[in-house]
Amino acid sequence: MDLWFSERETENIKVQWKLARTLASHQSQYQKIDIVEFVEFGRGLILDGVIQTTLSDEFIYHEMLAHVPLNTHPNPKTVLVVGGGDGGTVREVLKHNIDSVDLVEIDGDVVRLCREFLPELAGGLDDPRVRVHIGDGIEYVRKREAAYDCVLVDSSDPVGPAVGLFAREFYSDIFRALKPGGLMAAQTESPLFNQDLIRQVTKGLRQIFQDVRFYWANVPTYSIGPWSFALAGQNIKGVNMSVTSGCRYYNDAIHQGAFMLPAYFQDLLK
Amino acid sequence: MDLWFSERETENIKVQWKLARTLASHQSQYQKIDIVEFVEFGRGLILDGVIQTTLSDEFIYHEMLAHVPLNTHPNPKTVLVVGGGDGGTVREVLKHNIDSVDLVEIDGDVVRLCREFLPELAGGLDDPRVRVHIGDGIEYVRKREAAYDCVLVDSSDPVGPAVGLFAREFYSDIFRALKPGGLMAAQTESPLFNQDLIRQVTKGLRQIFQDVRFYWANVPTYSIGPWSFALAGQNIKGVNMSVTSGCRYYNDAIHQGAFMLPAYFQDLLK
Repeated sequence: MDLWFSERETENIKVQWKLARTLASHQSQYQKIDIVEFVEFGRGLILDGVIQTTLSDEFIYHEMLAHVPLNTHPNPKTVLVVGGGDGGTVREVLKHNIDSVDLVEIDGDVVRLCREFLPELAGGLDDPRVRVHIGDGIEYVRKREAAYDCVLVDSSDPVGPAVGLFAREFYSDIFRALKPGGLMAAQTESPLFNQDLIRQVTKGLRQIFQDVRFYWANVPTYSIGPWSFALAGQNIKGVNMSVTSGCRYYNDAIHQGAFMLPAYFQDLLK
Repeated sequence: MDLWFSERETENIKVQWKLARTLASHQSQYQKIDIVEFVEFGRGLILDGVIQTTLSDEFIYHEMLAHVPLNTHPNPKTVLVVGGGDGGTVREVLKHNIDSVDLVEIDGDVVRLCREFLPELAGGLDDPRVRVHIGDGIEYVRKREAAYDCVLVDSSDPVGPAVGLFAREFYSDIFRALKPGGLMAAQTESPLFNQDLIRQVTKGLRQIFQDVRFYWANVPTYSIGPWSFALAGQNIKGVNMSVTSGCRYYNDAIHQGAFMLPAYFQDLLK
């Protein structure tokens, strides 16, 4: 059987990836969860038909979401990951000398299935420094005050339940949940195909944080262009320390270079 | 009629783009040339079924191939573009204070059809500083000595007639065609999907040039990951001057950041 997964990037662009097999297919309370094995990209997580991550290049996204803020903060000890139920971001956070990392993921079935079928990502969730909370990240953050050195927003696309993770109110709650000197980072989609979103995020973050910067990376699994991230805090310095151990994308050069944005991206931030 | 263009990126990855219309379809002496209009990416050039460039993001590729070497060279006056019959690279070269640019393209029909249907790219070919030569770039370069400040290799993928444009012998001929202090730059495909090629290019260039560096950019039209370029010379300095006028991707930050490569790319160059 010649099976192809097809994803509609926009109305006018489709990608098709050949499947080796389907490992799990489950309708949770929140979404359709599929874990499959692509011939070219290895195993991957699909939510409501949209590829979230594949083993071939998940390291790029997760390293950049975790190490840029954690290597910018002078001494991160307590970290919160909002979303990211696959565990990939937590795995990278654990490379730092932290005391604890909380993960709050709305869909317990994502965590359960990733533990079973994507242990390369979810393996770190068993580390004694990790606490996994199944629940609404927005509610969770609202109740925290001066609790975290870094908050990492590892969300899916801004549709459905993830919309609130790109809103000013949520950033305001994160600000309150951060300790003095704390930093937040968030994935912010493609600077070519989600320009309105990036303008909205920029505006929202700037109302809350003094210092808002964007950085980017190239993740082939996200096939329509580069991927962007926001870093926000009160007075962001450069790299403070540099944990690059076991990294396949992130290094000192990338930490600097990722903030060097092209003209069209800088124009978005004006 | 619902028309979709389909491109096979690898055996296991396809992209499909919705077509608005086909503008030209021609079998030349060398290849099948199609010029189409994509709904999402605008007009584009397809050679033997492979997308070469689209109006939506051709500026990224052409700015990076032209401005990185020309802004690195202290005073480029004479430039050669090998390939690049669409004219996009020449258009960017003309933003510099140069005396002349030679374009050598093997397929005269590419130049003719791009002049007709992609004037945004080919328009610069009518500039009095430009000389268009229809012929074999390898032969052309072999006969030049100390003639150019910069040689830009704007080739298609390394199959068929373009194979020789990635060979050590060609680099050696370019070296001879360069004036003292001259620089060459070349497109070198994807560092994730063409790793053997990049290793081969690195080895070939290092046998000829003292200083070989790679840089990269994200061009969504080339959907499987980042795109790479090689810059080679005898003793490359940083940016010497900075022509960014009218650029939509290239700027001073990108010139620096484009050389800051991730761990997996640096590993390729060892």
